[in-house]
Amino acid sequence: MSHAFDIDPTLRDLLMRVGTATLSSQLIKRGLRNTFIPRVTPVDSKHARMVGPAYTLSFIPSREDIAIAANMAKPTNPQRAAIEAVPPGHVLIMDARGDLGGGNLGDILIARLRYRGVAGVVTDGALRDAEELRNLGFPVFCRGFAAPPSYCRIMASDANRPIGCGGVAVFPGDIIAGDSDGVVVIPPHLAAEVARDAAEQERVDRFVRRRVDRGASTAGLYPPNEGNKAAYQRWVAAGEADSAL
Amino acid sequence: MSHAFDIDPTLRDLLMRVGTATLSSQLIKRGLRNTFIPRVTPVDSKHARMVGPAYTLSFIPSREDIAIAANMAKPTNPQRAAIEAVPPGHVLIMDARGDLGGGNLGDILIARLRYRGVAGVVTDGALRDAEELRNLGFPVFCRGFAAPPSYCRIMASDANRPIGCGGVAVFPGDIIAGDSDGVVVIPPHLAAEVARDAAEQERVDRFVRRRVDRGASTAGLYPPNEGNKAAYQRWVAAGEADSAL
Amino acid sequence: MSHAFDIDPTLRDLLMRVGTATLSSQLIKRGLRNTFIPRVTPVDSKHARMVGPAYTLSFIPSREDIAIAANMAKPTNPQRAAIEAVPPGHVLIMDARGDLGGGNLGDILIARLRYRGVAGVVTDGALRDAEELRNLGFPVFCRGFAAPPSYCRIMASDANRPIGCGGVAVFPGDIIAGDSDGVVVIPPHLAAEVARDAAEQERVDRFVRRRVDRGASTAGLYPPNEGNKAAYQRWVAAGEADSAL
Amino acid sequence: MSHAFDIDPTLRDLLMRVGTATLSSQLIKRGLRNTFIPRVTPVDSKHARMVGPAYTLSFIPSREDIAIAANMAKPTNPQRAAIEAVPPGHVLIMDARGDLGGGNLGDILIARLRYRGVAGVVTDGALRDAEELRNLGFPVFCRGFAAPPSYCRIMASDANRPIGCGGVAVFPGDIIAGDSDGVVVIPPHLAAEVARDAAEQERVDRFVRRRVDRGASTAGLYPPNEGNKAAYQRWVAAGEADSAL
Amino acid sequence: MSHAFDIDPTLRDLLMRVGTATLSSQLIKRGLRNTFIPRVTPVDSKHARMVGPAYTLSFIPSREDIAIAANMAKPTNPQRAAIEAVPPGHVLIMDARGDLGGGNLGDILIARLRYRGVAGVVTDGALRDAEELRNLGFPVFCRGFAAPPSYCRIMASDANRPIGCGGVAVFPGDIIAGDSDGVVVIPPHLAAEVARDAAEQERVDRFVRRRVDRGASTAGLYPPNEGNKAAYQRWVAAGEADSAL
Amino acid sequence: MSHAFDIDPTLRDLLMRVGTATLSSQLIKRGLRNTFIPRVTPVDSKHARMVGPAYTLSFIPSREDIAIAANMAKPTNPQRAAIEAVPPGHVLIMDARGDLGGGNLGDILIARLRYRGVAGVVTDGALRDAEELRNLGFPVFCRGFAAPPSYCRIMASDANRPIGCGGVAVFPGDIIAGDSDGVVVIPPHLAAEVARDAAEQERVDRFVRRRVDRGASTAGLYPPNEGNKAAYQRWVAAGEADSAL
Repeated sequence: MSHAFDIDPTLRDLLMRVGTATLSSQLIKRGLRNTFIPRVTPVDSKHARMVGPAYTLSFIPSREDIAIAANMAKPTNPQRAAIEAVPPGHVLIMDARGDLGGGNLGDILIARLRYRGVAGVVTDGALRDAEELRNLGFPVFCRGFAAPPSYCRIMASDANRPIGCGGVAVFPGDIIAGDSDGVVVIPPHLAAEVARDAAEQERVDRFVRRRVDRGASTAGLYPPNEGNKAAYQRWVAAGEADSAL
Repeated sequence: MSHAFDIDPTLRDLLMRVGTATLSSQLIKRGLRNTFIPRVTPVDSKHARMVGPAYTLSFIPSREDIAIAANMAKPTNPQRAAIEAVPPGHVLIMDARGDLGGGNLGDILIARLRYRGVAGVVTDGALRDAEELRNLGFPVFCRGFAAPPSYCRIMASDANRPIGCGGVAVFPGDIIAGDSDGVVVIPPHLAAEVARDAAEQERVDRFVRRRVDRGASTAGLYPPNEGNKAAYQRWVAAGEADSAL
Repeated sequence: MSHAFDIDPTLRDLLMRVGTATLSSQLIKRGLRNTFIPRVTPVDSKHARMVGPAYTLSFIPSREDIAIAANMAKPTNPQRAAIEAVPPGHVLIMDARGDLGGGNLGDILIARLRYRGVAGVVTDGALRDAEELRNLGFPVFCRGFAAPPSYCRIMASDANRPIGCGGVAVFPGDIIAGDSDGVVVIPPHLAAEVARDAAEQERVDRFVRRRVDRGASTAGLYPPNEGNKAAYQRWVAAGEADSAL
Repeated sequence: MSHAFDIDPTLRDLLMRVGTATLSSQLIKRGLRNTFIPRVTPVDSKHARMVGPAYTLSFIPSREDIAIAANMAKPTNPQRAAIEAVPPGHVLIMDARGDLGGGNLGDILIARLRYRGVAGVVTDGALRDAEELRNLGFPVFCRGFAAPPSYCRIMASDANRPIGCGGVAVFPGDIIAGDSDGVVVIPPHLAAEVARDAAEQERVDRFVRRRVDRGASTAGLYPPNEGNKAAYQRWVAAGEADSAL
Repeated sequence: MSHAFDIDPTLRDLLMRVGTATLSSQLIKRGLRNTFIPRVTPVDSKHARMVGPAYTLSFIPSREDIAIAANMAKPTNPQRAAIEAVPPGHVLIMDARGDLGGGNLGDILIARLRYRGVAGVVTDGALRDAEELRNLGFPVFCRGFAAPPSYCRIMASDANRPIGCGGVAVFPGDIIAGDSDGVVVIPPHLAAEVARDAAEQERVDRFVRRRVDRGASTAGLYPPNEGNKAAYQRWVAAGEADSAL
Repeated sequence: MSHAFDIDPTLRDLLMRVGTATLSSQLIKRGLRNTFIPRVTPVDSKHARMVGPAYTLSFIPSREDIAIAANMAKPTNPQRAAIEAVPPGHVLIMDARGDLGGGNLGDILIARLRYRGVAGVVTDGALRDAEELRNLGFPVFCRGFAAPPSYCRIMASDANRPIGCGGVAVFPGDIIAGDSDGVVVIPPHLAAEVARDAAEQERVDRFVRRRVDRGASTAGLYPPNEGNKAAYQRWVAAGEADSAL
């Protein structure tokens, strides 16, 4: 029932060290232009780095006779069931239809996810209990905060089916990565090469930024021409790339 | 696989004779305020009356490596499979995420649905082939027209799961009714009583409208007070209600 | 209680003969750039010409314990009261907050307004009973149609207070003019001069259009330079302006 | 003229200690699903707790000949009059039509409200003077900041009439409560029971959160089954609920 | 100054016989997913077929001291200059920033364009003089109608520079094709092959539709498998494809 | 090629000391109601003060065959060219069509602009590399953050042509001023008088705020009547205005 997806620990560690700006650039180079979830930001930008396979949850508009408190709290409710079913290391990612009128989750259920070892939480809707969430030290991403429980507007329907989150396709098992810029969705068959090339791109970017800060023009440097590629290789060989970390 | 839902032919006939304005009023009286799909209109207002159980289809945002013409035309594609799977007498209703950048269906697939005896088609997105659809003589409802196939924006994911269509919850088997005002979603357990009370309400409304056209004030008439209720009963007894049809 | 505003019959007749395109141009020349209500269109473009002083009605979001059918139908409900209070010759214009989820009025109440001699109806929301309204032969303007009564979303609050309709300020007694392009709001102290100058502008426009249809460039003609002004005066003097009507 | 509404000081104190998340949950249980104002956030989340009866102010779109600086600054202007008329302890809540093109109020007028003992300020539009407002130590809620005075877009029309704020009905005298999640509107006849039940709900929530942080599953705990209810009662009896405050 | 782009008359004729639904499908197959302008519809669906190279015009928001009637009517105003500069056979296509508060053009200037032999007009904003435009018998596409001249909201800036129209890139000289579904933008280097393949696709579609209307399933037919391809070839060879035109 | 516009250093210094709230008020008094860019906020409100002539850059929607990484990085790409062409002391202001799906610029290119002595950066779209931008100590304004490069959605088209930024007209050389409230656009021929009157208005505002904080009513004070004008003059004469700075 728990549909756990594996992610190689080395891959996970590599992805934790590269940013979503670089990851989405690498995906665009491979023809995937729509992998970043717009307007979803971290609750706490100091605890925004997050990587894990997607565990998805979809919502539909509420109907008043179904979406009542008694039903919503039943363990069989798809949302409640998901809280206990997301495998450790996975990211719970929700298709809340962009609704900002209610909060999909509050501090109690998110504290439970944190305790269970879940890697993070993403919604294209809102969350509740803003202050408490800011103090959890846990990667949580949303489009805003709303005090009411979201069942006044939407109710969970299916778990671990393909969803759209903020206009981006998410399949169960897709690799979800988050940082202070937001959240990107990586098809698992591309994750290893994207991670590898992103790490190299970030090393080049650090070299470029250092040159720029010292007055170099971006022409011929960003991206580097042959001369600057050679300079970059010398910089890497001299161990400066690592000391710049 | 085809998940056919029964609808009593007498109930169906009764629902075909009442409008969505009356049906949604009856649902509001029962606490269901969100059953009408806003901004979805009939392609041909002369062929808009439609009643049938819902066969649902959901969509997610497209990913460029999956949503290609070759994949979209496979019989196993959820959209293509749905065209052949909707049971006769049912309404195909789609959660197109409100996207107007592409057409969910065009004249060929809708002609096939018509041939198969499907009761009608509803999307909260767009359709293709506007001119041909206007000439089909078949109940089709959408938010607009767009020339490209919708897979450039969204792709079908699941059939016969709960969906949201234009912000309204739709469960497979819900009774979908359409007319020139638009489309309303009726939970099946309420359909019989809603149909009965709607038919009576429309009879009263015809009585009221007749009085209004002759100069009566709406106070005490709409809804009728005791005196006007008695006048209505005499009007019904005299057989005028039926001749007004 | 009925707050009737006078409009000079000659002024009214003059305004009935000029279009909203010309009227809004004249208002812009006087510094009023925001007098046309965008995206509000006539239900029946053959019965769209309408002129009369504004009788306003505002709405607020519904609260579930107040906005119930029993309360909405009371003669003291502000909407119901307005139906009987709009003075003949006036236009009922509603600030429906742009909500398209329900219909502010249906055929019965609008038939009553027509019977009472009201000049027309405008809402920046939706109306119910599309087919019946199209057959009333009465000037009615809206942003769309919706089957449910609007009290599932909004409820009337105040009559004859300043409102905003589709982003335009409307004061009780403002002159409301409608045609196939839509609805324009004219401050009463400007109505006479705007009507006079609009009538003259339309006469010039007919002259210009005639020349354009015969191949004239718009440079020097639209607006006319001295030579074309003289040609226009000869055209008027020859009585051709009237025969072009 | 000042329309002061009483609020029992004990009730006010109780409401100051419960959050809007809990208050809106209690209102939903009573059938009121639309009492939270979405996307309105506190200017200073450390000074967001606020409770008081509503003093309302509505706006309409500006007309260029009326909305000029000289008129806007007159003491008879509805906005200026409201600044001096809001009774101490009340919340000034504005229906700014969601407009973000101008600021409804700036630091001088809000400093005046603070001096006068007003409980707080809410708008569904924008405010001016962001930096100064963040330093006032006063509960102020808005949807954003804009430098121009709002009269370039909207102008105040009526005070203390029913309004909609961010899609929520607000009647003068409704109890407005704010915290870091946002603002909720409580009908006064429900305020006492909602406050009482919310306080109890928050005590239960603290118990639940504590158990969750120590590893308990949410099934059977949130909401508590019989066993956990008994544990909760023992926890309360042992005085731990208060020490957890 | 007139920047005329050639289009081969044979290509133009071929494009006039295929629809935008087919053209956009062919473009998607070539990796161009965003060539159809959403929500732009023909004023008169009976005069919607249109093909010609793009002559572009861009707009910026108005500034009150510049966008006055006297300036707007000068022959040097970019919009007025464009009316006389669009080469015959070209399509005037405007980036009106999606603004629906004013009409970019009215009947006089569009009558002038028609007289000059321009192929059609497209805007992602609104137009004025709805009734007159419906009677011109000329291909005109817009998102709605508005009575005021658009200079109350936006003013023309540059002609024949790259623009976005309704979210689609348009370069001067791109081939613009319109029909009852809307408007599609074709890069000129692809126009010949897209036209040829679209014509063939439409012939196949007519074959498919005919089979569907007689009861064939879409599986194996749409698109055709080997057996149906052979049947199609026999149908073409028998001359039925042409008689179906 | 670099189109540098002069700004008098004294004027620049004066504008750096007044806020956008005051500047936009002064522009409204001169009939310019639409000079503030809504919903654009500083990345770092402590480094938001910025004044300089506008260097503009426009964008159009991307086409997949043009907007590829190789093309975007060419020195001839209009965006890349702009980075090196913005004259020192100028503000780079971009018409990103309000798109939030990608970041117009990231930390490397903005670091280059900072090094080159550019006064600041404004976009009505998003930027990349949120954390790095917050640490630059450089005035940067946007509507949000997005990880992907913006060429997946839009591509730069023209530099130093009139643009619209967030619905406001911007001509090359217009004076752009920013602070914690946002960004205002000042026509250069008005800049000197607007700056002078804004400085005086802010001095009056400080006087008013001081009186308000000590309990004065705003009536007769804001704006000051004759008595308060005299008191203000005494306050200025006593040197308190400067000590209040």
